[in-house]
Amino acid sequence: MKEIEGIITDAPKGGAKYGKFQIIEDEGNIRVQTLYTGICGTDRGMVAGHLDFTYNPEGQSFTVLGHEALGRIMDPGSSTAFKKGDLVVPVVRRPGDCINCRIGRPDNCSDGKKHEAGITGKNGFMRKSFVDSEEFLVKVPDSSMLDYAVLTEPMKNVMKAMEVFGTVSRRAIISSDDSTFEGMRCVVIGTGPEAFLYAMSFSDLGFSTIITNRHPIDDNRMKILSYFHITFVDYSKDDSLIGDNINVIVDTSGDPGTIFRFFRRLSYNGIALLFGTNSNAPATGVDGRDIDRMIERNLTLVGTVDAAKIHYVQALEKLSRWGNMPNSPLKNLITGIYKPSDTGIFTERNPNEIKAVIKWA
Amino acid sequence: MKEIEGIITDAPKGGAKYGKFQIIEDEGNIRVQTLYTGICGTDRGMVAGHLDFTYNPEGQSFTVLGHEALGRIMDPGSSTAFKKGDLVVPVVRRPGDCINCRIGRPDNCSDGKKHEAGITGKNGFMRKSFVDSEEFLVKVPDSSMLDYAVLTEPMKNVMKAMEVFGTVSRRAIISSDDSTFEGMRCVVIGTGPEAFLYAMSFSDLGFSTIITNRHPIDDNRMKILSYFHITFVDYSKDDSLIGDNINVIVDTSGDPGTIFRFFRRLSYNGIALLFGTNSNAPATGVDGRDIDRMIERNLTLVGTVDAAKIHYVQALEKLSRWGNMPNSPLKNLITGIYKPSDTGIFTERNPNEIKAVIKWA
Amino acid sequence: MKEIEGIITDAPKGGAKYGKFQIIEDEGNIRVQTLYTGICGTDRGMVAGHLDFTYNPEGQSFTVLGHEALGRIMDPGSSTAFKKGDLVVPVVRRPGDCINCRIGRPDNCSDGKKHEAGITGKNGFMRKSFVDSEEFLVKVPDSSMLDYAVLTEPMKNVMKAMEVFGTVSRRAIISSDDSTFEGMRCVVIGTGPEAFLYAMSFSDLGFSTIITNRHPIDDNRMKILSYFHITFVDYSKDDSLIGDNINVIVDTSGDPGTIFRFFRRLSYNGIALLFGTNSNAPATGVDGRDIDRMIERNLTLVGTVDAAKIHYVQALEKLSRWGNMPNSPLKNLITGIYKPSDTGIFTERNPNEIKAVIKWA
Amino acid sequence: MKEIEGIITDAPKGGAKYGKFQIIEDEGNIRVQTLYTGICGTDRGMVAGHLDFTYNPEGQSFTVLGHEALGRIMDPGSSTAFKKGDLVVPVVRRPGDCINCRIGRPDNCSDGKKHEAGITGKNGFMRKSFVDSEEFLVKVPDSSMLDYAVLTEPMKNVMKAMEVFGTVSRRAIISSDDSTFEGMRCVVIGTGPEAFLYAMSFSDLGFSTIITNRHPIDDNRMKILSYFHITFVDYSKDDSLIGDNINVIVDTSGDPGTIFRFFRRLSYNGIALLFGTNSNAPATGVDGRDIDRMIERNLTLVGTVDAAKIHYVQALEKLSRWGNMPNSPLKNLITGIYKPSDTGIFTERNPNEIKAVIKWA
Repeated sequence: MKEIEGIITDAPKGGAKYGKFQIIEDEGNIRVQTLYTGICGTDRGMVAGHLDFTYNPEGQSFTVLGHEALGRIMDPGSSTAFKKGDLVVPVVRRPGDCINCRIGRPDNCSDGKKHEAGITGKNGFMRKSFVDSEEFLVKVPDSSMLDYAVLTEPMKNVMKAMEVFGTVSRRAIISSDDSTFEGMRCVVIGTGPEAFLYAMSFSDLGFSTIITNRHPIDDNRMKILSYFHITFVDYSKDDSLIGDNINVIVDTSGDPGTIFRFFRRLSYNGIALLFGTNSNAPATGVDGRDIDRMIERNLTLVGTVDAAKIHYVQALEKLSRWGNMPNSPLKNLITGIYKPSDTGIFTERNPNEIKAVIKWA
Repeated sequence: MKEIEGIITDAPKGGAKYGKFQIIEDEGNIRVQTLYTGICGTDRGMVAGHLDFTYNPEGQSFTVLGHEALGRIMDPGSSTAFKKGDLVVPVVRRPGDCINCRIGRPDNCSDGKKHEAGITGKNGFMRKSFVDSEEFLVKVPDSSMLDYAVLTEPMKNVMKAMEVFGTVSRRAIISSDDSTFEGMRCVVIGTGPEAFLYAMSFSDLGFSTIITNRHPIDDNRMKILSYFHITFVDYSKDDSLIGDNINVIVDTSGDPGTIFRFFRRLSYNGIALLFGTNSNAPATGVDGRDIDRMIERNLTLVGTVDAAKIHYVQALEKLSRWGNMPNSPLKNLITGIYKPSDTGIFTERNPNEIKAVIKWA
Repeated sequence: MKEIEGIITDAPKGGAKYGKFQIIEDEGNIRVQTLYTGICGTDRGMVAGHLDFTYNPEGQSFTVLGHEALGRIMDPGSSTAFKKGDLVVPVVRRPGDCINCRIGRPDNCSDGKKHEAGITGKNGFMRKSFVDSEEFLVKVPDSSMLDYAVLTEPMKNVMKAMEVFGTVSRRAIISSDDSTFEGMRCVVIGTGPEAFLYAMSFSDLGFSTIITNRHPIDDNRMKILSYFHITFVDYSKDDSLIGDNINVIVDTSGDPGTIFRFFRRLSYNGIALLFGTNSNAPATGVDGRDIDRMIERNLTLVGTVDAAKIHYVQALEKLSRWGNMPNSPLKNLITGIYKPSDTGIFTERNPNEIKAVIKWA
Repeated sequence: MKEIEGIITDAPKGGAKYGKFQIIEDEGNIRVQTLYTGICGTDRGMVAGHLDFTYNPEGQSFTVLGHEALGRIMDPGSSTAFKKGDLVVPVVRRPGDCINCRIGRPDNCSDGKKHEAGITGKNGFMRKSFVDSEEFLVKVPDSSMLDYAVLTEPMKNVMKAMEVFGTVSRRAIISSDDSTFEGMRCVVIGTGPEAFLYAMSFSDLGFSTIITNRHPIDDNRMKILSYFHITFVDYSKDDSLIGDNINVIVDTSGDPGTIFRFFRRLSYNGIALLFGTNSNAPATGVDGRDIDRMIERNLTLVGTVDAAKIHYVQALEKLSRWGNMPNSPLKNLITGIYKPSDTGIFTERNPNEIKAVIKWA
C-alpha cells in the first residue's frame, strides 16, 4: 500500500473526496507528476453514482478518479524512452488477453476484460503523482503544448473514430469527383468538447461541417467554431438549416431520438458515427421505413469507443497543429481551471463550460 | 416499338397480365431467350401495388416484370464474348453517372439515378426473349448449372453483402485465435431464399450458423439446412437456443423489432448486415442502453442493397460449388416451377415455397 | 521418445531414409493416420542438402520429412471438433510469439521464430501416423475429396497470395469498367503444381490467364489448362504471344531474369506476386529504367510465403468446387502415386510430373 | 492565343528562355497571379533535354515550364469557392478518361493518357499569371503559409505515398506491440527536398528515422533534421550505423544499386517505397537470394508517382503543422529565391540547395 493525495470515488456508488488515501501500488517504475486532469461526463456520472459498469480496483474500497491527464516525468526509472521533465499523457485502457488486446488494441477488446484507469478496476490520475510503465505513457512532442495537451485523451477518441470511419467508408466511394471531401456534409450532434474535436477534424478533412444542439451557444464557442470554419445550428429553432443529404453524422449526445432524427437525412452511402452515451435516454421508434432507407442507401451505423496508443500519438499531432496555428483559439476549449479541492465541480457545471480541468502543479 | 410476349404490371399501381404487348426497344444487340425467371418479394409487392418507389420506363404505361433471370444466347450480335447457346444471367441495375456508377458500381449509386430492370424505369425479363448489351450479361461457366443458375440474382446480393462484411469487419480482429472463424456465431433472421443463401455462405466461412424464424419449417428446408451444417431455431418457441454473444447477424425480415431483439445480443465487435426490407413493419423502441451497447462494444450496423457485375461472377462460382457437391440439395431451393400464364403465383404463395420460378422455354 | 515408421532426412545435410525411427513425442492428443503426403521442391531440396535454412527438431539428429499431407482421425483424443474417420489436413507452420503469430498468422511471422513441420525444427508427416492438436488440424468438408485433398497444402499458399493480392490491389482500381476482371490479363510463370493452382484461381476471378514456361508441356497438362480456360505459351518459342500490358504476374520460378522479363511488361497499376524460390538462380540486371517504370506506372512487387489456417479452409472450399465440377480433371494434377519405400522419387523427377504423392494407407 | 511572360522550354529537346510568348489559352476562368514556383529535378531534366517522355501542348512548339507553384487569386471568375486574394496551389495532373481518372485519381491513371502541367502536353506555371478551373485549384488554409506553401507540390507526393504505404501495409501487422510505430525503423535514401519531407512524415508517425546519402551534408540540413528527430548517416563512411532489420525504406535516388543495397536489409513484412527516378542509373544485379528473401520475409516493393487533389489538401495540413511549430525550421528547406530571369538556375545547382524557388511577385 502507498499513500497518495488525490480525489477518490466509490464505484459504482459515487461521491467525491479530496484527501490522502492508502492505495495499492501502481505497476511500473516511472514516476509522473500530474499537471492537469480533465473532467468529463464519465467522471461526473461516477460521482453521481449513475454508472453501473464501473468498479473499484481489486483490494480497494474506492477508486482514484480521473482518466484525462497530462503529466511530467519526475523519475524515468529504468526507461530510456523518457527523461526527467518530459511531458507525457497516460493511456486509459489496459489490455486483457483477448486477440485484440494482444496486439495493443484494447480499445477493440473482444471480451470486456480490459481495465480503464479511473473507471473500471484501476486507479486514475486525479492525484499529485502516479507510477506507470513505458508502455502506457505517450510523450508530448512539444513543450509548447503544456496549456492544452490535457485534451489528448478526449482527442484520441476522435482519432480512433476517424480510423473506423476510414475503414468502413471504403465500402463505396464517398468522396467528391475530384477525390477531396469538398461539398460533402458532416453534422456533429452536441456542443461539448468531443463534439468540437470531431467537428474540427471533419472540417480539416474538407467536409462542410455543422455542429448542432437544441439551444443557443455562447460567444466563446461561436468564436472557436468560426476559426475552424464550422457552422452552428440550433436545431430547435430552424432545423431546415441542416437540410437533407448529409454524408456523415457524428453523435455525442447518446440520445436515440436525436440520432435517428438526423440519421433519416443521410444521403446514399452515408455513415453515422456513434460516440456519446446516455443510458437513461428515452426510447425512440425505429420502423420499417428506417430499415428500408438504411438498406436502399447502403448506410452504415457504427459505435466506436476509446482508442489505442497510436491514437494518442495522432491526437498529439493534431493538437499541435491546431494549437500552433496563428491566433489559435484551441486553448479556449478549456473554460475553467480548478483546484483539486474544488470537488463541487463534479456536481455543478457552468453552462458555458466546454472542458473543465484541475491543475495539480 | 416492338412486340413481346410476357408479363407486365403498371408501376406503382400494380396488377399482373400475361400476353403480347408493344414495348420500347431494348438497348443492345444480343438477343437472349429467357429460360427461367425467379419470383421474389419485390415482384409480388409490385403486383400488389405496395412499392411506391417503382415506376414505368419512360414512354410506356407499364413495366415488363422480372429481374431474376436465366437465359440462353439466341444471337450474339456483334459480341465476341458470347456465342449462340451460352447460358447467361442479365444484370439488374443499370448505371447512372454518379462517381460509383462510373466505375461499374451502380449498387453503390450515390444519387439514386440508376435504373433496375423490371422495377424502376426499365423493362424486366419475364418475357420469351429480350435484347441486351455485353456489358450487362454474365456468362454461366458451366451448362450443368441450368437447373439452378436462376438463383444467381438472389445470390449476387449475398456476395455483395459479404464484400461489405469483409470491408467493415477490418475495423477490429473478428476471427478466432487461429485465424479462422471456427467458434464464431452467425444468426440469420428469416427462412426465405436469401436467408438460406446467406446462411450457407457464413457456414462455408466457418461460422457456427443458425437460421431462425418465428414458426417451424418444413422437411425440405430442414434437409437443405442439415446438408450445409446450419441449425434451425424457431425463436417463438425457444429463444434461448440462440443465446448471447452472437458475432454476426444477417436480417432478411426487414422487421425492426426482430432486428433489435437479436442486435442486443451481439458480442464485442459484432456486425449486423441488414438486407430484408418491409416498409410496413411497425416501429420498435431503441433506447439509450441500445446506443450505449453499440458504442461500448464497437458494433456495426450496415444496410446493403443489390450488387455489381463482379458479384454475379462470384455468385455463379459459389452456386457451381454448391450445386456440384455430391448429393447436393441446392436444386431443392426451387420449390415450384410455373407457366408464364400462372399469374396467380404473384398473389398466392405456397407456405413451403423457398423460390418459385417461371419456365419460359 | 516414440517409434515411428516413416521417411527422414538430416537437415540441412540431406539424404532420405525410409524405416523405423525413435523421435521425440509430438505435442497434442489427436492421433491421425497419414493417407497421402505430397512431394514438393522443398522436400527434394532438403534431400539434396541444398536448403541451408532447414534444421532438425531440438533433441533429434534428423527430421521426419513431409509438410503436404492428408490424414484420417484415428483417435480424436479430447477433441470434440473431430470424430474418428474424419479426413484432416495438418497445418505446416507453428507460431512463435511475435505480434503476427499471436493472432494465428505465423505465415506473417515478424521475427522468423516460427517452426515448420518437416522443414524447420518440427517433424513432418511422412510417416504412418502422427499426433497433433485441434488447433493445427483442418477438417476436409467432404469425403469425396479423398483423392485430391492432399493438394490443400500447395493450394493454401495460393489462397494467402490471393489475400495479399486483394490487399495491395486496393491502392488503385484495377478492375474493368464493369467491376469485373474481364479483359484483365494474368501471366503465371512456371508449369508446376503451384503455377497450375495460381492460374486456375486467376482464371476463376475472370482474368484472361496465360501460363508460360520455356519448353513445351505434355498432353495431360494441356487438357487440364483447357478445362480451366487457361492458355499455355512456350515463351522460348514465341514470346510475342504474351504481349505487353499484363495486369498481374505470378512467378513460381524464383528466377530473377524471368521475373524481370515479364515485370517490364506490366501495365499501369500492375502487380507481381512472387512465390517461387530458387536461391541458386543467377543475377539479372535491374537498371534505372526499370525503377522508373515501377514508379511511373505505380507498380507493386510482393513476396508471399506460406499461409494461415484460414487459407487451408479456403483452399479446401476451392478444391471442392474444382473437384466436383462435371468431368473435372482436378485429380490429374496428381501424376504419380508412390510407396513410402520409393525414396528414389526425391532425387528423380518424371518430366511430366505435376504432383507426385506417397500413399501411406 | 494569349501573350504571357514566363519561362519556356521545347520538350523534349530542352533549353530555357525567359520572355514574352504567345500561348494557346488555358481552360477555366479563374485568374491566378503566380507568387512562387519551385524548381525540381524534372524541370532541370527538361531543360537539359534528358526527359524523352515530355512533350509540348498540342498547337505549340514549346511548353511553359513549372509544376510546383503557389499563387494568389486575382479574379475568381464564376467560382464561389474562391475570392480575390486567396492563396492557391494548382494541381499538376489533369485527368484522361480511364477508370481511375474518372474518380479524380489521375495519379493512378490506367492508360497514361492524363496530362501534366509544365511536363506533358499542358503549359506550366512559371509565368506572371495563369488561368485555371476551380477543380484544379487548392486553397491554402492559412495566409501565414505564404513563405513555404510552394512546398505543397513536392509534399503531396509524400501524402500519396503514405496512402499507398497505409494500403499495402495492411497485409500484415507492422506496428509494435503497443499499436504505435515506436521502435520501427525507416531509412530514407537521398537528401533532397522529397527525402526530407518523407523522413519528416515517417518521424511524425513514430518511426525511428534515418536519412542517408553517400556524402556529408551541410549545417542547414543537419539543423532541420535534428529539429524533426531524424538521424543522418553518410553510408559511404559507415554503413553499419544503418544496420539491419529496417522496416521501411523510401528511395528518392532512383539508383537500383542503392535501392537493393538497403532492400536486402528489410526485416520481415518490410516495405520499400520507390519514388525517385533516374533513368540513366546503371544496372545492379538481383539474384535468386534476393527473390528468396522477398518471399520468405513477405516483402513489398511499391512504386508511387504523383498524387490526387486530396493529397494536396493533406499536404497543406501537414505543412501548416510543421510551419507553425515553435522555432520551426520548415522555411529553411527553401535555400534559394531567384528571379524569373535567372535561368542559369536550371543548369547549375548550389551543392547546399534543398529547394530553389523563383519569386514572381
